Amino acid sequence: MKQLKNILLDIKKLESAASVLHWDQETYMPEGGGDFRAEVLAYLSLMGHQMATGQKLKDELSRHIDYNSGDLVNITLSNEEKRLVELVRKDLKKQVALPDDFVEKMSKHTSATQQAWIKARKEKDFSAYAPFLEKMIKLKKQEAEYYGYEDKPYDALLDGFEPGMTTKRVAALFGGLKERLVKLVEEINSAKQIDDAVLQQSFNTNEQWKFGMKIAEAIGLNMKSARQDVSAHPFTIGLHPEDVRITTRLNDKMLLSGLFSTIHESGHAIYEQGLPKEQYGTPLGEAASFGIHESQSRLWENVIGRSKEFWTYALPLLKEHYPQLKDVNVADWYRMINVVRPSMIRVESDEVYYSLHIMLRFDVESAIINGDVNVNDIPALWNEKMKEYFGITPKDDAEGVLQDVHWSFGGFGYFPSYAMGNLYGAQIMEQAEKEIPELWKKVSKGEFLPLKNWLNEKVHTHGRFYDPEDLIKVISGEPLSADPFMKYLEKKYKEIYKL
Amino acid sequence: MKQLKNILLDIKKLESAASVLHWDQETYMPEGGGDFRAEVLAYLSLMGHQMATGQKLKDELSRHIDYNSGDLVNITLSNEEKRLVELVRKDLKKQVALPDDFVEKMSKHTSATQQAWIKARKEKDFSAYAPFLEKMIKLKKQEAEYYGYEDKPYDALLDGFEPGMTTKRVAALFGGLKERLVKLVEEINSAKQIDDAVLQQSFNTNEQWKFGMKIAEAIGLNMKSARQDVSAHPFTIGLHPEDVRITTRLNDKMLLSGLFSTIHESGHAIYEQGLPKEQYGTPLGEAASFGIHESQSRLWENVIGRSKEFWTYALPLLKEHYPQLKDVNVADWYRMINVVRPSMIRVESDEVYYSLHIMLRFDVESAIINGDVNVNDIPALWNEKMKEYFGITPKDDAEGVLQDVHWSFGGFGYFPSYAMGNLYGAQIMEQAEKEIPELWKKVSKGEFLPLKNWLNEKVHTHGRFYDPEDLIKVISGEPLSADPFMKYLEKKYKEIYKL
Repeated sequence: MKQLKNILLDIKKLESAASVLHWDQETYMPEGGGDFRAEVLAYLSLMGHQMATGQKLKDELSRHIDYNSGDLVNITLSNEEKRLVELVRKDLKKQVALPDDFVEKMSKHTSATQQAWIKARKEKDFSAYAPFLEKMIKLKKQEAEYYGYEDKPYDALLDGFEPGMTTKRVAALFGGLKERLVKLVEEINSAKQIDDAVLQQSFNTNEQWKFGMKIAEAIGLNMKSARQDVSAHPFTIGLHPEDVRITTRLNDKMLLSGLFSTIHESGHAIYEQGLPKEQYGTPLGEAASFGIHESQSRLWENVIGRSKEFWTYALPLLKEHYPQLKDVNVADWYRMINVVRPSMIRVESDEVYYSLHIMLRFDVESAIINGDVNVNDIPALWNEKMKEYFGITPKDDAEGVLQDVHWSFGGFGYFPSYAMGNLYGAQIMEQAEKEIPELWKKVSKGEFLPLKNWLNEKVHTHGRFYDPEDLIKVISGEPLSADPFMKYLEKKYKEIYKL
Repeated sequence: MKQLKNILLDIKKLESAASVLHWDQETYMPEGGGDFRAEVLAYLSLMGHQMATGQKLKDELSRHIDYNSGDLVNITLSNEEKRLVELVRKDLKKQVALPDDFVEKMSKHTSATQQAWIKARKEKDFSAYAPFLEKMIKLKKQEAEYYGYEDKPYDALLDGFEPGMTTKRVAALFGGLKERLVKLVEEINSAKQIDDAVLQQSFNTNEQWKFGMKIAEAIGLNMKSARQDVSAHPFTIGLHPEDVRITTRLNDKMLLSGLFSTIHESGHAIYEQGLPKEQYGTPLGEAASFGIHESQSRLWENVIGRSKEFWTYALPLLKEHYPQLKDVNVADWYRMINVVRPSMIRVESDEVYYSLHIMLRFDVESAIINGDVNVNDIPALWNEKMKEYFGITPKDDAEGVLQDVHWSFGGFGYFPSYAMGNLYGAQIMEQAEKEIPELWKKVSKGEFLPLKNWLNEKVHTHGRFYDPEDLIKVISGEPLSADPFMKYLEKKYKEIYKL
């Protein structure tokens, strides 16, 4: 087992080095460094791929599990070790499923498609992007065939983000969500809108930075093993549980954007810091899924960060940075920061509308991959769904089908993770409320450690030991459902909008 | 040739990745990341070593040059290509000269010795460090034997920093320097000391940063392909000619320390940016030697940065940042920033004393490696030389033999490069004055590009095509000599001290 783990750790060292280079690229790298950096990253990735698919790893793995059948060979393995070798086998099979020339073709086409997407979005011109997207879709369908699936091709792609998830299962979960969500939105739209003019002022960005850092530390981000920088798009990157980097962006016209971004990324980073160090390098040292990762960031950002109790603690602190807010009370502040407004753009969306954005994308991309949608019909399909879910129509494709980067890097199957994160998070939080005495009272006093430690124990420390749905069941005793999330939204927003 | 270059470029990609990790370690890495970072760097270094000593490289090389005899095999090679394969062979022979178990032993002992040095310096206790240094010396003597040499063991170590340099040659060069330098120092000491109380004020570090950045750009550092950050010890690291990083440190009590550090590192960085891009990855894309590198940093820092002409241009700019300096004139400023004072500490030393510090170290370390000095006698040897060169005696070993890190990482042979840099730089500058019309008039107007471009053409673009002494001869038409440096110092300081 030691030998197997050592090979995996060596691969991880290359990945961790590449992560530093990625982080540097997005934060500090001078412009001139870009071309060679791309070459270095491609080379590290190639070396990692060679090791991850090499005979050495396969040989060591085969001492524990039969590569072809999946039957265990080593009968002395603990449950953890069994899961470990099963995951290594699963990952290896996926890695070798794609022929080298396919990987190269995909890699080249991804670069070209991303360039084309940037240009098309800027020029609001879908037609120039269409041939690139068409070929990308063809390649992704091919990829799904290489991986294999039981029911639908889209399932093979989903599995890369949410292990075990299927088109059918996502559709069932989202189905339970849609009706109640659309109804809630209608009710909110019929209510009197909240006046949030106070937020439209200018807020010094240095003070935003200081306040954000205070909050990140307060909720439990260990700054001895983390740091925050500024980048064009906020992200989290874990180099090791002892070295996790987050970024934010600050805008003096948007006090909350930078702050909630910091809390969101801190949620991701607290997860990374909480992964089991002794399993670092093995699959058990990894996060359970994209959706579980997103549950952690959204839980801290929305469920905690946009709660009345959080601001009972945080508003007085914020006022120290912005005396201009001295007359605002917690009740009004709480309503202002939770204003619900339909938006064309996913990343600018509030908590209520957000999942609708995702459901729309799931509908469109699962139809594309599972069916036979003509690429030129995609914008119309998008706009039709927009009308159905939001009652509005994008004025152009830049605020419609071209708004997200995901398809251009081949990330079909990624979107559902965002909404799954909401569902996972609400179900996890419902359990936390049961198990942590006076949780919300503690939050209102700025005591976040009980929740952070509980999440460490219930979620983070398991790494990838459980598939996401199993993890939720282990934590809550119940199968995954959209009900906790909808209950949470209905209760919160009916109070806020006095419905 | 293409295949050979591709292997070399792949090795360079690993080195460049490691350089980003080193840079990050010294600038932004959170404390917690240190342990794993060391593992990642060790792994990248191991992979690089394996590739640099692998059969693949040897096979490709052997198509052009006989590995054992050094005879050229490929008769179609250009002069550049001949030099390239000779250097690859030389580097390869050095890489394989050390047995794996020796490299591992050295690596482990280096870590232990550095820890011991840090502790010993802090506690001013040489005796606790002595056994580590003793073993290090033993290992370095062994290393010299592995490399082989014609005359003295120290020559084998010198070659790692100044290719082609020998104990005898350094002693001859330093011999020509010593007498004149000691005489100049005596004269300066008998003159009236300059009043530099103006410099003892407090100077806002933000303004120091801004001024330093302005000067770095002015002298020709291309900021599209470079950046500056803050670190505990200033350094330059070239990831590629298009991505070079420098660091500085700022202290509000020391206006000049941060500025001259920025100019010094900019000199290194301008060299890195000027290396031939088309040879990147091959030895021809590398710097000629540590000493040539140092010639570039010291030339910009001292010969230009501490000249009257430079400050004719720069003082008015500095006054914009520090109105408190408004009454200082260029003549007085020039004398103040060139004050000569004996110092126990090399890194705090002025231009005149600096080379004496190096000569002392050369005397001591060449005696250690070539002879049979008992480790416990080293502090006394050091202090005796200190008395001889400086007329002063360190009050303890922390400001004596323990002040430098070099021996603790095994850097015997490194020190001479610093003084060689002064000699190279003066001889290069003497030629620049001949070839660039009205050079000093241009400097006084802030026109640095003629010099920067001249250095690009005469020094940087050659990479490692010439060994350092050959390069100097090609540039100046004369063999290397201490005379230009001494002439420069004598002229400058006799004027400053009105001798």
